[in-house]
Amino acid sequence: MPLQPTRDDKFSFGLWTVGWQARDPFGEATRGPLDPVEAVHKLAELGAYGITFHDDDLVPFGSDARSRDGILAGFRKALDETGMVVPMVTTNLFTHPAFKDGGFTSNDRGVRRYALRKVLRNMDLAAELGAKTLVLWGGREGAEYDVAKDVHAALDRYREALDVIARYSEDNGYGLRFAIEPKPNEPRGDILLPTAGHALAFLHELERPELFGINPEVGHEQMANLNFAHGVAQALWHGKLFHIDLNGQHGPKFDQDLVFGHGDLLNAFALVDLLEHGAPGGGPRYDGPRHFDYKPSRTEDYTGVWASAAANMRMYLLLKERAQAFRADPRVQAALTESGVLELARPTLDEGETYRDLLDDDRGFDADAAGARGYGFVRLHQLAVDHLLRA
Amino acid sequence: MPLQPTRDDKFSFGLWTVGWQARDPFGEATRGPLDPVEAVHKLAELGAYGITFHDDDLVPFGSDARSRDGILAGFRKALDETGMVVPMVTTNLFTHPAFKDGGFTSNDRGVRRYALRKVLRNMDLAAELGAKTLVLWGGREGAEYDVAKDVHAALDRYREALDVIARYSEDNGYGLRFAIEPKPNEPRGDILLPTAGHALAFLHELERPELFGINPEVGHEQMANLNFAHGVAQALWHGKLFHIDLNGQHGPKFDQDLVFGHGDLLNAFALVDLLEHGAPGGGPRYDGPRHFDYKPSRTEDYTGVWASAAANMRMYLLLKERAQAFRADPRVQAALTESGVLELARPTLDEGETYRDLLDDDRGFDADAAGARGYGFVRLHQLAVDHLLRA
Amino acid sequence: MPLQPTRDDKFSFGLWTVGWQARDPFGEATRGPLDPVEAVHKLAELGAYGITFHDDDLVPFGSDARSRDGILAGFRKALDETGMVVPMVTTNLFTHPAFKDGGFTSNDRGVRRYALRKVLRNMDLAAELGAKTLVLWGGREGAEYDVAKDVHAALDRYREALDVIARYSEDNGYGLRFAIEPKPNEPRGDILLPTAGHALAFLHELERPELFGINPEVGHEQMANLNFAHGVAQALWHGKLFHIDLNGQHGPKFDQDLVFGHGDLLNAFALVDLLEHGAPGGGPRYDGPRHFDYKPSRTEDYTGVWASAAANMRMYLLLKERAQAFRADPRVQAALTESGVLELARPTLDEGETYRDLLDDDRGFDADAAGARGYGFVRLHQLAVDHLLRA
Amino acid sequence: MPLQPTRDDKFSFGLWTVGWQARDPFGEATRGPLDPVEAVHKLAELGAYGITFHDDDLVPFGSDARSRDGILAGFRKALDETGMVVPMVTTNLFTHPAFKDGGFTSNDRGVRRYALRKVLRNMDLAAELGAKTLVLWGGREGAEYDVAKDVHAALDRYREALDVIARYSEDNGYGLRFAIEPKPNEPRGDILLPTAGHALAFLHELERPELFGINPEVGHEQMANLNFAHGVAQALWHGKLFHIDLNGQHGPKFDQDLVFGHGDLLNAFALVDLLEHGAPGGGPRYDGPRHFDYKPSRTEDYTGVWASAAANMRMYLLLKERAQAFRADPRVQAALTESGVLELARPTLDEGETYRDLLDDDRGFDADAAGARGYGFVRLHQLAVDHLLRA
Repeated sequence: MPLQPTRDDKFSFGLWTVGWQARDPFGEATRGPLDPVEAVHKLAELGAYGITFHDDDLVPFGSDARSRDGILAGFRKALDETGMVVPMVTTNLFTHPAFKDGGFTSNDRGVRRYALRKVLRNMDLAAELGAKTLVLWGGREGAEYDVAKDVHAALDRYREALDVIARYSEDNGYGLRFAIEPKPNEPRGDILLPTAGHALAFLHELERPELFGINPEVGHEQMANLNFAHGVAQALWHGKLFHIDLNGQHGPKFDQDLVFGHGDLLNAFALVDLLEHGAPGGGPRYDGPRHFDYKPSRTEDYTGVWASAAANMRMYLLLKERAQAFRADPRVQAALTESGVLELARPTLDEGETYRDLLDDDRGFDADAAGARGYGFVRLHQLAVDHLLRA
Repeated sequence: MPLQPTRDDKFSFGLWTVGWQARDPFGEATRGPLDPVEAVHKLAELGAYGITFHDDDLVPFGSDARSRDGILAGFRKALDETGMVVPMVTTNLFTHPAFKDGGFTSNDRGVRRYALRKVLRNMDLAAELGAKTLVLWGGREGAEYDVAKDVHAALDRYREALDVIARYSEDNGYGLRFAIEPKPNEPRGDILLPTAGHALAFLHELERPELFGINPEVGHEQMANLNFAHGVAQALWHGKLFHIDLNGQHGPKFDQDLVFGHGDLLNAFALVDLLEHGAPGGGPRYDGPRHFDYKPSRTEDYTGVWASAAANMRMYLLLKERAQAFRADPRVQAALTESGVLELARPTLDEGETYRDLLDDDRGFDADAAGARGYGFVRLHQLAVDHLLRA
Repeated sequence: MPLQPTRDDKFSFGLWTVGWQARDPFGEATRGPLDPVEAVHKLAELGAYGITFHDDDLVPFGSDARSRDGILAGFRKALDETGMVVPMVTTNLFTHPAFKDGGFTSNDRGVRRYALRKVLRNMDLAAELGAKTLVLWGGREGAEYDVAKDVHAALDRYREALDVIARYSEDNGYGLRFAIEPKPNEPRGDILLPTAGHALAFLHELERPELFGINPEVGHEQMANLNFAHGVAQALWHGKLFHIDLNGQHGPKFDQDLVFGHGDLLNAFALVDLLEHGAPGGGPRYDGPRHFDYKPSRTEDYTGVWASAAANMRMYLLLKERAQAFRADPRVQAALTESGVLELARPTLDEGETYRDLLDDDRGFDADAAGARGYGFVRLHQLAVDHLLRA
Repeated sequence: MPLQPTRDDKFSFGLWTVGWQARDPFGEATRGPLDPVEAVHKLAELGAYGITFHDDDLVPFGSDARSRDGILAGFRKALDETGMVVPMVTTNLFTHPAFKDGGFTSNDRGVRRYALRKVLRNMDLAAELGAKTLVLWGGREGAEYDVAKDVHAALDRYREALDVIARYSEDNGYGLRFAIEPKPNEPRGDILLPTAGHALAFLHELERPELFGINPEVGHEQMANLNFAHGVAQALWHGKLFHIDLNGQHGPKFDQDLVFGHGDLLNAFALVDLLEHGAPGGGPRYDGPRHFDYKPSRTEDYTGVWASAAANMRMYLLLKERAQAFRADPRVQAALTESGVLELARPTLDEGETYRDLLDDDRGFDADAAGARGYGFVRLHQLAVDHLLRA
């Protein structure tokens, strides 16, 4: 039964996903709160291997030490009972009104300092629970008005904060890796580091760039109408795909957080194929958690919540099954060859060839003939669709 | 007469802009060809200081050596007569059918080699004409189908090509700087290095990253609904704004190439303010060419073409004038202070402060009070709009 | 002092706009509640002439009769003291969880019946307060999944509900006009009647189409990247612009509800010009309320709320002032003539001309000459921008 | 072999689709011209039943009478030999420079008159070849600048032209039906009648509205990020789906014209289900031509052209096969019932029930219970995806 998830599939969910009470900008909550302990048990039953959280998801903002300890004890017990792990932890720097102009890049220095303390403290918890990755989503780092944010200074402050965080982890022996999660907008009119590309560029400027990667999210890139599989491929090429958020989205509109595969199905197929098999001509695969960062639709009750959690994993496994068949099909391999897809792995210059050699090698090339060649891309793509649909 | 452009304004135009014959996907050319010599003279009269071109704009594809020499002699003469310069040159790797699957990253290795030769030869011309910058727009480097392009291999080939180019320039003492121009799509379904961020990330992987920067274009970033002024601010922060393409666009649709300022006027104001004055809290200004990469509307004859060329420069100077008044207004400075915009330049940690000090400094902060503070952003923004509109 | 609003400007605000407590999908409220009585007084002071509300904005959902009476008495007193009017009322069919799958088109018939009762009761209040217009925003009439909503049946139910509403108003002598407010998405994945066009088409199928028009909102059309001024022009052409919602938006993303003019400034200029002066060649102007349906940014306290309310009116008056100068400028009239803008009002056929006459009149036309003509649109547009910027 | 198209499937193609020579805004043609006679034969072999064209596709613009007659004779012969029909004809009002500011709504009255004559003459040909439908795509009816087009006058002229056309068809006994094809932009910055909704609204104002319907195109609606299946459902509800253009698109960007199903696959599934089976609760099906208006990718040679033509039909038949299984599955019917999808066909009021009865029927409804109900939409949708993927 290949569509039954197992721990080896490394499926993980945020507490805030199945626990979302479905309050949206125009409506009240339609579901009651979910006990984190129940979430652990239920997700384990469904086949997940991990659970993740923002500090405030698990321990409500402002809890005293006693409540905190009680909550943590119960949560750890649930993990022990189920064998579930906490592969990633993240910090809420967006819900409380104090963060309304950002955390690390708020125009209010007191807030910036507070945000940094909040993350440092959460790292203690992350380490304690064995998390390997800390995700950094700067959802409020941005502006509605161009004059309201000094982007140059903001990037300085962002870097400052991330350098402190890295030092703290290293000094304490936490061994955490950090994954920046880009998003173009919402809740801010424009968010800093809006795409996978901007985040990848940014992290090169840090003191310890090797500790930083990205956590791209399907819907976030698609809100800018970018090709998500392409963005992930570039992240892998940089060696920076440290974590991934899977969900569904229908192009540039509000952040929908649908079930994975319930948005752009063809691109989801390409993504799973890439994560599982690497690029056709070789290249790294992704072996971290398959993390679902979605929201069960507001129309659903808890039966629907668990059905939607299961649907995420089912979609991934379905796409994986089809991608395996696609890769294994000799007709596909022939078509990839004919289309030149596999040839692209071959360097443009021969080994040892210089640009002088290249410049001299002008005679053999017939530009018009090269322009007349058919690449057979539509046929190749139809083969992929046929495998996806098992036609 | 502050709205009369002078050479000090460093306005430049592509030959392909005023020379666009207005053929679009659904219609034939509405204008006859423009002689490059006439373009030089006319743009000089209007107040531009520079002209740029793709190799094939100046010397038609396939010209023999004699024609080439004649064209170049005439062009140089026009430059001499007018004092116009050629600050930038770029290479056409997209018009000929041979490039239909890309240049540096075509699935056809013969095409990749040809593309590289074409760029190297164009660099000889660029150097000869005194150009300082070579722009690299990889408009065909991409795909319509996810299975049709091995993105990992494509980025390897892209890097390989750019490393060769840099070596060639250095070995020949050309001293060129290279500016990658990102675009999300069109003419390909998805283009590699789709945004300023992706290009900034990519160039870190090159052999000589210091020679590479970006050439962001207003419309290209806005086709992904990104904030252009934010993208430019990040490029400046990285020290990588090597060139800029100014035009206008109305959000995610086909590439409109309107006159600068005729698209998102408020963002154009923020952009000019940034280029001219740097970030509010300090940071680099841009002192390179203000290059217009636009298309005179297809409804216009040559009278309209020159009117549109003049409109680009007028818009820039108008916005510059208003931005100067904005910066000089004491009410604005007061509002920037009140909104905390200027405070963001102050480091989050005091000099010498450690994270331990920071963690200890918890008592003074009242999160609820911080959440209740009004930032006054709307008022600040209205001041900006008032200055823009001279209200 | 032309930028000081007066009652003649017919500026109105929703209670839910200045009263928005700034809770968004990722954050808690940053402002306390606003007393409707204070809202009336404050808006009157600022120069507004009217206030509008959803039933639940004024009388909280579930209030008993006594509370309701008390609230209404206080509200009426405030209206009397200030001379403020209630030109429009609307019904909340979206906040309570019962409406999670829609109101008039919910898959649950009990909800449909409840929604209808809620609107009918609200009409009693609307009539009592002298409102002339009932706005119908079906924000939850839609779906996230194509299979989850029978659109054909949904449009039947929508029509059924609107026919009942119209009958109720007529039978009771309320004399209300009804304005459908389109929106493409958010909070639902897709909303029925997504654009001004879809709503205009729909209302033709009602029993009493003459009682129904539309209430287009700047941001809603721009979320589909449509030209708002064009949509409004079409609504005016149909005689169906019954009400209008003014605000600002930056293209296809979440519903931003910025201050009017703080989004696409050039299109806002065209809109005000159209509302105030009608089409250049003649056509109806809009003389209803200029209604601001915006949200004061979450970063603002109540000082900022009132500054933002004032900014809406200031922007409208600024744009009106510039549009008046634009229309009055003889150079503009000459440019409109030269561009053929004014000629378009002339019928294509002469009076009494038949298609046979037209077909016979073939000789005089030179298609190539017509294709060579320059329309001078860029110059005309630059004149408009110059007037907007008072250059 | 259910995926082998037959004449009963009513698949038709535009001559301009398989005949597109692949010239795009940035590149020259990559394919030679296609003889219409060959197109007829080849499409017939592949299983199509019909072919369509713009006047100038078949008879090049400016051909003399003799050439025209020769071309038509050859074309008719091919139709006779193959049994192919011409279900639809359309008129090119966009390629020649004369149309650069539009056809029916050009600011140049001479152009407007010429455009009308061109359509009338094309109707003679349409009737002669037995076409039942004339498609009207006003691709150039629009503007780049808001001040450059008097939209009110333009809609007057649009109506005037369409009224003349209808009269001409009726007087000559052609019996044509007219289908307006909406598009939001490209090649103009904004096009009039930008969506299915706007066109549906517009046609109500014509003299003979019953002769007019719409021809929605997948990609055109998706360029405004609208739900295509929803738009088609509304058109069917109005009884106005006179024709349909099938293709693929990836959201708001340039007009891609991909193969049907190669864009948003899930929405394509919903569309085929709707066209083939009507709404779940009953309602009209579509029985006209399944017309593919796509462009074979520029990377393909003629082998790829024909492969892409075949892929369109294969995709439709695959989706039809999966939709049939979906509808026939008892689990699906149960899920539709549970989700209330089928209940929506039941009127909100009982037969004979008045609004007074409705208002009195308040007691039984528990809003909170209604809000707590789970609709099971995610599970229902997953069933649809499972059928699509044959999981």
